Amino acid sequence: MTDSVVASFTETKDDRLREVIQSLTRHLHAFAREVRLTQAEWEAGIRFLTRVGHITDDRRQEFILLSDVLGLSMLTVGINAPATEGATESTVFGPFFVADAPEIPLGSDIAQGAKGRPCWVSGTVRSTSGEPIPDARIDVWEADEDGFYDVQYEGNRTAGRGWLRAGPGGEYRFWSVRPAPYPIPDDGPVGDLLTATGRSPMRPAHLHFKVTAPGYWPLVTHIFRAGDPYLGRDAVFGVKDELVVDFAEHSPGTAPDGRSLDDPWTSIKFDLVLAPLTNR
Amino acid sequence: MTDSVVASFTETKDDRLREVIQSLTRHLHAFAREVRLTQAEWEAGIRFLTRVGHITDDRRQEFILLSDVLGLSMLTVGINAPATEGATESTVFGPFFVADAPEIPLGSDIAQGAKGRPCWVSGTVRSTSGEPIPDARIDVWEADEDGFYDVQYEGNRTAGRGWLRAGPGGEYRFWSVRPAPYPIPDDGPVGDLLTATGRSPMRPAHLHFKVTAPGYWPLVTHIFRAGDPYLGRDAVFGVKDELVVDFAEHSPGTAPDGRSLDDPWTSIKFDLVLAPLTNR
Repeated sequence: MTDSVVASFTETKDDRLREVIQSLTRHLHAFAREVRLTQAEWEAGIRFLTRVGHITDDRRQEFILLSDVLGLSMLTVGINAPATEGATESTVFGPFFVADAPEIPLGSDIAQGAKGRPCWVSGTVRSTSGEPIPDARIDVWEADEDGFYDVQYEGNRTAGRGWLRAGPGGEYRFWSVRPAPYPIPDDGPVGDLLTATGRSPMRPAHLHFKVTAPGYWPLVTHIFRAGDPYLGRDAVFGVKDELVVDFAEHSPGTAPDGRSLDDPWTSIKFDLVLAPLTNR
Repeated sequence: MTDSVVASFTETKDDRLREVIQSLTRHLHAFAREVRLTQAEWEAGIRFLTRVGHITDDRRQEFILLSDVLGLSMLTVGINAPATEGATESTVFGPFFVADAPEIPLGSDIAQGAKGRPCWVSGTVRSTSGEPIPDARIDVWEADEDGFYDVQYEGNRTAGRGWLRAGPGGEYRFWSVRPAPYPIPDDGPVGDLLTATGRSPMRPAHLHFKVTAPGYWPLVTHIFRAGDPYLGRDAVFGVKDELVVDFAEHSPGTAPDGRSLDDPWTSIKFDLVLAPLTNR
């Protein structure tokens, strides 16, 4: 059977598509044979995928979530982002990126109503050779202190996300809210899978970054918070030691940008180091 | 990465679920590593599955279609229905079964308006030891002469499907229409996959059967038509030689049940042989 199916793809014009689909066929069949998949299990699989498909919409991507909890997303990151000496490590993209997030000026606030302790984030975008990268585009997104992204709320609000451009010296800075640990959405089929397998849906607190600049490999990563209780058991396997940073906590007072705060606030400093395209 | 994900499932209470999900993880990861899946390909995969999910509804099951064209459905049939000496071979279930099809009396017509040459189908339901199986439930469904199942038409019509009970001697008989070769639905993502891989969407003409009776293994199978040009290249790999039968063509006249036909008609004779539950 497997040979027949693999052979059926022989006429594929695109060499790469042929390679991928034939490999997928072989591994999918090897799985079914290894576990001697029953008809009832096959049906359960069809029902599961159907539920994943039906809960997925413009604001929820359950297939990415499934890929995440099966470690496929992080494995793909690892395959495609072999460490370039000195470059910031990559991690999972996750299901909560929104393509049309608002641009914000350098130094302003992405929170836009997201709840949480104010968090000042700053650093430099530079290349592995140390050159600053002016005008690099930095997309940022995060959950609020209750652990929810804007897209998880009713009403199409936009909060806790935006993008900015690094300044002339590659510098970047913005206000956000201090991220909190949160469960990935667990009211759908992926949540049921985690429950059935005794796994926690929790992710350690993090801030998402996507950084792009002409001539450099795009960087998709997180900043994680040192000391977070979930660092060792991230539901989506996204933690890398290099991405765990100290969040400095401050008493009410004046922030680096001159803003005066009546409540405690937090700051993070993190350089985003991109690998030149020629380096791989 | 793979070891971490496999280990994350260790606490699964259900032993079988643990076995299946750990095996799935290993094989899925082995696939991604083997082809060195790119980020763009991963994204294309997510988009593809999202399309499969969104086109799937109560009347269209694109996940089953996907499983079918990847040969997973037929492989699962093979794993679960090792040939019991003398029993009718199984084949794929397909995406067009409808659970609440109407019951029809023995000898009546399942066509109910489905277009095509009248086709008289008869035979006996019996066990591998030769015993007739009275009252066996026989579900039948088929495409019309244009290659479409009822569920592919607008308007929730029911035609070309129904179920009946075998008579006291295990005998069954009904009118249908002569099935025609047809393309599986190819206006969705699975059709796009077939196009991109140079594969034909055609299936050889067939009549679907699902036969159940207490004390016997359920049988899911087709009758294929001898001489069909697509027998050697079924899009879903469902053909088995034992399921290919001669369709007898008749001039206008009197049918076996006394019905008088003004147009040519067809007949098939096929015994449905079930394996007792104790036999495996």
